[in-house]
Amino acid sequence: MDNMELWLHKAQVLIEALPYIQHFNGAKIVVKYGGSAMTDNALKKNVIKDVALLKLVGFKPIIVHGGGKEISKWVKLSGMTPEFVNGLRVTDTKTMEIAEMVLGKVNKNLVQYMESVGVKAAGISGKDGNTLTVKKKMSAGKDIGYVGEVTNVNTDLIDTLIENDFVPVICPIGMDDNYESYNINADDAACAIATAEHAQKLAFLTDIEGVYRDPLDQSTLISELTVAEAEEFLASGHVGGGMLPKLQNCIDAIKQGVSRVHILDGRIEHCLLLEFFTDRGIGTAILGDGESRYFNE
Amino acid sequence: MDNMELWLHKAQVLIEALPYIQHFNGAKIVVKYGGSAMTDNALKKNVIKDVALLKLVGFKPIIVHGGGKEISKWVKLSGMTPEFVNGLRVTDTKTMEIAEMVLGKVNKNLVQYMESVGVKAAGISGKDGNTLTVKKKMSAGKDIGYVGEVTNVNTDLIDTLIENDFVPVICPIGMDDNYESYNINADDAACAIATAEHAQKLAFLTDIEGVYRDPLDQSTLISELTVAEAEEFLASGHVGGGMLPKLQNCIDAIKQGVSRVHILDGRIEHCLLLEFFTDRGIGTAILGDGESRYFNE
Amino acid sequence: MDNMELWLHKAQVLIEALPYIQHFNGAKIVVKYGGSAMTDNALKKNVIKDVALLKLVGFKPIIVHGGGKEISKWVKLSGMTPEFVNGLRVTDTKTMEIAEMVLGKVNKNLVQYMESVGVKAAGISGKDGNTLTVKKKMSAGKDIGYVGEVTNVNTDLIDTLIENDFVPVICPIGMDDNYESYNINADDAACAIATAEHAQKLAFLTDIEGVYRDPLDQSTLISELTVAEAEEFLASGHVGGGMLPKLQNCIDAIKQGVSRVHILDGRIEHCLLLEFFTDRGIGTAILGDGESRYFNE
Amino acid sequence: MDNMELWLHKAQVLIEALPYIQHFNGAKIVVKYGGSAMTDNALKKNVIKDVALLKLVGFKPIIVHGGGKEISKWVKLSGMTPEFVNGLRVTDTKTMEIAEMVLGKVNKNLVQYMESVGVKAAGISGKDGNTLTVKKKMSAGKDIGYVGEVTNVNTDLIDTLIENDFVPVICPIGMDDNYESYNINADDAACAIATAEHAQKLAFLTDIEGVYRDPLDQSTLISELTVAEAEEFLASGHVGGGMLPKLQNCIDAIKQGVSRVHILDGRIEHCLLLEFFTDRGIGTAILGDGESRYFNE
Amino acid sequence: MDNMELWLHKAQVLIEALPYIQHFNGAKIVVKYGGSAMTDNALKKNVIKDVALLKLVGFKPIIVHGGGKEISKWVKLSGMTPEFVNGLRVTDTKTMEIAEMVLGKVNKNLVQYMESVGVKAAGISGKDGNTLTVKKKMSAGKDIGYVGEVTNVNTDLIDTLIENDFVPVICPIGMDDNYESYNINADDAACAIATAEHAQKLAFLTDIEGVYRDPLDQSTLISELTVAEAEEFLASGHVGGGMLPKLQNCIDAIKQGVSRVHILDGRIEHCLLLEFFTDRGIGTAILGDGESRYFNE
Amino acid sequence: MDNMELWLHKAQVLIEALPYIQHFNGAKIVVKYGGSAMTDNALKKNVIKDVALLKLVGFKPIIVHGGGKEISKWVKLSGMTPEFVNGLRVTDTKTMEIAEMVLGKVNKNLVQYMESVGVKAAGISGKDGNTLTVKKKMSAGKDIGYVGEVTNVNTDLIDTLIENDFVPVICPIGMDDNYESYNINADDAACAIATAEHAQKLAFLTDIEGVYRDPLDQSTLISELTVAEAEEFLASGHVGGGMLPKLQNCIDAIKQGVSRVHILDGRIEHCLLLEFFTDRGIGTAILGDGESRYFNE
Repeated sequence: MDNMELWLHKAQVLIEALPYIQHFNGAKIVVKYGGSAMTDNALKKNVIKDVALLKLVGFKPIIVHGGGKEISKWVKLSGMTPEFVNGLRVTDTKTMEIAEMVLGKVNKNLVQYMESVGVKAAGISGKDGNTLTVKKKMSAGKDIGYVGEVTNVNTDLIDTLIENDFVPVICPIGMDDNYESYNINADDAACAIATAEHAQKLAFLTDIEGVYRDPLDQSTLISELTVAEAEEFLASGHVGGGMLPKLQNCIDAIKQGVSRVHILDGRIEHCLLLEFFTDRGIGTAILGDGESRYFNE
Repeated sequence: MDNMELWLHKAQVLIEALPYIQHFNGAKIVVKYGGSAMTDNALKKNVIKDVALLKLVGFKPIIVHGGGKEISKWVKLSGMTPEFVNGLRVTDTKTMEIAEMVLGKVNKNLVQYMESVGVKAAGISGKDGNTLTVKKKMSAGKDIGYVGEVTNVNTDLIDTLIENDFVPVICPIGMDDNYESYNINADDAACAIATAEHAQKLAFLTDIEGVYRDPLDQSTLISELTVAEAEEFLASGHVGGGMLPKLQNCIDAIKQGVSRVHILDGRIEHCLLLEFFTDRGIGTAILGDGESRYFNE
Repeated sequence: MDNMELWLHKAQVLIEALPYIQHFNGAKIVVKYGGSAMTDNALKKNVIKDVALLKLVGFKPIIVHGGGKEISKWVKLSGMTPEFVNGLRVTDTKTMEIAEMVLGKVNKNLVQYMESVGVKAAGISGKDGNTLTVKKKMSAGKDIGYVGEVTNVNTDLIDTLIENDFVPVICPIGMDDNYESYNINADDAACAIATAEHAQKLAFLTDIEGVYRDPLDQSTLISELTVAEAEEFLASGHVGGGMLPKLQNCIDAIKQGVSRVHILDGRIEHCLLLEFFTDRGIGTAILGDGESRYFNE
Repeated sequence: MDNMELWLHKAQVLIEALPYIQHFNGAKIVVKYGGSAMTDNALKKNVIKDVALLKLVGFKPIIVHGGGKEISKWVKLSGMTPEFVNGLRVTDTKTMEIAEMVLGKVNKNLVQYMESVGVKAAGISGKDGNTLTVKKKMSAGKDIGYVGEVTNVNTDLIDTLIENDFVPVICPIGMDDNYESYNINADDAACAIATAEHAQKLAFLTDIEGVYRDPLDQSTLISELTVAEAEEFLASGHVGGGMLPKLQNCIDAIKQGVSRVHILDGRIEHCLLLEFFTDRGIGTAILGDGESRYFNE
Repeated sequence: MDNMELWLHKAQVLIEALPYIQHFNGAKIVVKYGGSAMTDNALKKNVIKDVALLKLVGFKPIIVHGGGKEISKWVKLSGMTPEFVNGLRVTDTKTMEIAEMVLGKVNKNLVQYMESVGVKAAGISGKDGNTLTVKKKMSAGKDIGYVGEVTNVNTDLIDTLIENDFVPVICPIGMDDNYESYNINADDAACAIATAEHAQKLAFLTDIEGVYRDPLDQSTLISELTVAEAEEFLASGHVGGGMLPKLQNCIDAIKQGVSRVHILDGRIEHCLLLEFFTDRGIGTAILGDGESRYFNE
Repeated sequence: MDNMELWLHKAQVLIEALPYIQHFNGAKIVVKYGGSAMTDNALKKNVIKDVALLKLVGFKPIIVHGGGKEISKWVKLSGMTPEFVNGLRVTDTKTMEIAEMVLGKVNKNLVQYMESVGVKAAGISGKDGNTLTVKKKMSAGKDIGYVGEVTNVNTDLIDTLIENDFVPVICPIGMDDNYESYNINADDAACAIATAEHAQKLAFLTDIEGVYRDPLDQSTLISELTVAEAEEFLASGHVGGGMLPKLQNCIDAIKQGVSRVHILDGRIEHCLLLEFFTDRGIGTAILGDGESRYFNE
């Protein structure tokens, strides 16, 4: 006979998830998908299954993905040299064309994974249904080409998909008022969409453990921040380079109505489930006023 | 720091539930609630939480309960002696009145527990909405009073409750064509309701491990039976007394369209979750043709 | 041949009801059911038929019932002595259990009568769907046990039943924030429900003719009171004991949006029809500002 | 004080109507409106109130009216002589124009009366929404002009009006396949509409008591006929002239699914209410198989 | 072979209509139908086809018609002399009866034409559904009988028809608070309906070219007026007699929310299409603030 | 002043489109988009505007596009040599990746054009929503890699988009039962989708005039073919190479319920409008039994 205690433990795990499932039933969750969780096949499968479970238990997930390294690979394949200014890709017409092709491929690949675990998914770009309208984004005052800043999110198509039981998988490309194509930073796009959709959670899958109070000391990982603390911390100047715009995004999202923003370590298996369904926090949570992270019985 | 492996195990348990949740999404599940699971407060809380989780992840549970021992207690309190013929309670007018009062109390007590864990529940009897119509049931040719056999299930009220997000909690009392009240065996009522509602599962919470091939030998517990095997087994004469009508009920339910019937050991904590969400079978499953019990990846 | 004049008179009666039916089409009507109308079988049948007719011609009746004398009977049967403080029943755990059982029995009995005249009905208590939330009610500063004062009415379940063509029959039991059961005065419950449901009418079936200007002089029956007059009258100190809280309830209901409150003599056959469909007022009507009682053509 | 017995009698009348109201709740009732009930103002008001009450208690009345004498009056006013062949009006272009004008006036007059008693009504002709399609009807082989026989009923507009709470008031004019206007016998139109709408009742308001077994002997009024008896009677040759096509219409309607057809004496006040809501039959009822006329408790 | 250039030109015409169709998709358009466009059969067919096309491409047309000359004809036929005071018809009971008959005939004739080109239409008067409520309109202080001024538009019936895909064809008759019939000036009725329906366009089909700056000089036709200019012009005193109330109507409609009002020359074939779908303006347009007439690519 | 005759001619063109618009109102139209109409920018703008107009006047267009020459260009850019067997592209993993990227780019480019003329559009591949399921397609018995033959069309996502007012723009990529990606011939995909959607029209935009009776003689262009004639013609062996599978597709589509299939010359401006809205046929029409091409008044 099998070990009954083990099975009872399993039941216990499921029951522990109950208050989380109740609390977020019907809630929109935006997941910014990127980093290792997108390039490592085993991690990718885990994330997709996590999203599948989130959807089945009543959450309404929205996926926003980037495609960074893959774009650079194809730019090089085409005989060009990828160029960046302040972390933003210089995007001429040719680069824009390649970026759109690569992001489209990544997009359909995610849809493919989702369908394979039985989740209805539909991949769109911000051009479909005029979902993302942008204006040109300067980089420190310099024109770096077709890099866009979101000025409007038309939620029609996203809502249509969600209401009809499809998970929207969105690649961060938009059009300006003249219907020209622009590349958008995926973090920015996720933040704009979470705000427009009044999402209850916005989770960034990253390749870091979270926010460190001292970037050089891994023992200083911050577990929770109120938005006031986050702003103070940002002002302190101790925030490391790549984290700076991400943290600013988090603060903006909270201020515009998203209840909880998570910077998750996408290298941990099932990080979404652990963060959303258990009392084990993964990475750093920035919380709106009056929000709590766990539901202890 | 906490033990990461433990947490990953937790995530793994949740993910294992995925195919079960997908398969039964939107399915109606009738739970015949009785035995220790109803009298032991700790077990009761577990069952209610299991039902809460079933509902949250998209199942549509319907609870049918009995109240056997409690009825006898109150009959005695009223100065009468409980009387049975072939396992059926002799039910005169006075006993019927007491039975209805006691079942009503049990009914609201279950509702109370459900509401306390955040599940919308509504307790009804088979008289409400004319849900259960009966005719007098004879016991071996003998008139034993107001004991009814279900002749019709009007699903209007049950469906109304389910569609509006309430768990129906049903006590097994019905009316005959003259609107007289009758007591109904709870197993019979559960079976009739599961059939009328085209339930995908019918689970009996009992105080036994399941069906034994040899009632005297606990090592002969049967894990799975096809309906043909169950009929053969029933014909063999080896089925113990109390199990006989229950097994017949199971067979009837399968033949009328219920896909899976489970005789569960209600004394095991979270037996519903274990049976419905994991590869650990609890008790005996009777399966319709072409149905499988587990979803191994 | 039959007397044609008689038949024309019948038609005339039906036509007289026309303006009342038009005016209250679709209106919610809360009937507090109690007194002789509940204990006398002939009267009970009449009331139920009245309610059936009200429903058929487009009203939306909601029944709230008590069970006073019957509860005392069963308390005594259980070997206890009913105890009251200022008209409120002292309710210990055991008494609460009996009260719930008795009210449940009364509840299903009313449903049974309704179904027998072809009206879809569903009996619930305030625990179902968390309909009635209460806090402990003191009696002149004294803790008298599980006697509750309504603090919230969740109309979800009542509305679900009405929209799906069932008459809700409600027994006045609720739960506090800890999901403990409490007994509620039926008049109070009816008043709270009428207010929460924005009922156009609230009718109390009583065993008195109505409100007397001089409680000792039956010739001083008051036919109509505005809410201002009712308050003045209440302040005058001439209101008899039992009538005092009822009149206060009437005033509260009007102030919270119920248009007309009726104190009806439930001993008069078809008192509901007479009051609602003819120019013959029964008992005392308390009217909101600008409301009239009759519709003379 | 008023006579209480009188009031109780009133309540009793209302209660007697209960089974009728229950049985026909939601049923479509086609009333062919004509004769004195249309020309006598007092009777007209009564009929309209009857229809108002029918609607309020849940019936779905559809009115079809004629305009016979009024048309002849205006034909004469225009200097022409009304001409008939076998009871059908010879209808040249000029007569057709006058018929349409007069019927339109009658139509709006009925709407006006209905609106004045608070009933939402909409008057249409069979041309609106292409409701009535006809072909030319010969009279004993003779072409008598624009007299039409209904070949199709498009129920779209009628259904739209009913579903949106309007009583359709229909004048019997239709168009042929070339969109030419035709006058239709109102009895024929009512019969065709009742059939197409699957009405449960079709009532002809006439100026006779009903069908006599012997047209010359008023003591031989027939109260009920099955459709088989009606056909036999028709074959017997004892049916008087004007009644012959009407009886044929009744038989046709029953055969095509209308449950009950009534030939009512429109000269009796409130004849619709008496027939539909009491045990006092007015005129002659032709019943489909298995249908009964009264509901005695 | 055919002339390809001609066909390309045709395609070009269709494409030119694109921005107009896009802009007015789903918009309600009230057309006051009168003048030659109603009396000349060829023009009538054109207008009906124009309306059919408007409806098919997504507009929601509402037709309001008069019947002026025809009423006078029938008044004379009845031996009376038509009488006018300040352009308003003196309307005694007899005249009112004739007006209603004639307008009813005109109404059904328009419906007939629409149905013949495959458009679902329903003809109503303002009495149906109590659509138009009026009070007596004095003419320069003089009582001229049953001439009404619209005090309320009940849009229930019109909306029901539009939502169910019928074009409402409305004749300008209404009732006062006592349900008496009144004749209404068709321009006034169209204006009141356009306002109540929040129409985007109101078009008057007239027998003039449009508004002239100098009524005596046809070269001074005004193509566009803002509402401010229109008021100024009205105040200038240069507006000719018949045009004065019409222009006042236009101004009122704009002020109450109609975006564009057109005074069209109904004598020009397909004037509705030309005005609504091409860059060729017909007659005079009065525009609300910020509205433009054409959509040049 | 402008030439009035010219404008009247314009109105006439619009009116000529009326019967076509009426007939195809609400009809689904699948357009296989390819050839010059996709590569020539001026033609592309025309086609998009045509589709915009089709949608606005009530058609439900579905676009299926290929990307042939562009794929070969990128295959070469990646240093490979495009290879074909019997007209089907040999598709290894690397080629499949490029094909998906290029088709994705083409897809979003079409969406971009549509949005720029105000049409809501959503670009999907057959992987989204599991829309296109395929099995491997052999070319004359030879395995040529990831080339798929449609075995199932799941219409959920397409229908969701149409019902919510988006034009679906579909690129012909699908997945097999193991969720592997496959390239599909665009003609085949269009044919499968038209059949699954019960389209009333399927139009192939090509770079030929249509089907010639003698491929070498341009004077033998065939204007109309019944499906029987088309089969006979196919059997005759006179059909030129590229046309053979296309004609077979046409025949299959008709046999499976598409009413009309058009082989249009996409090099002619506005060929869709000319074919769908005028009496000027473009290219070859294959008609189902009883279908006609033109609607002459």
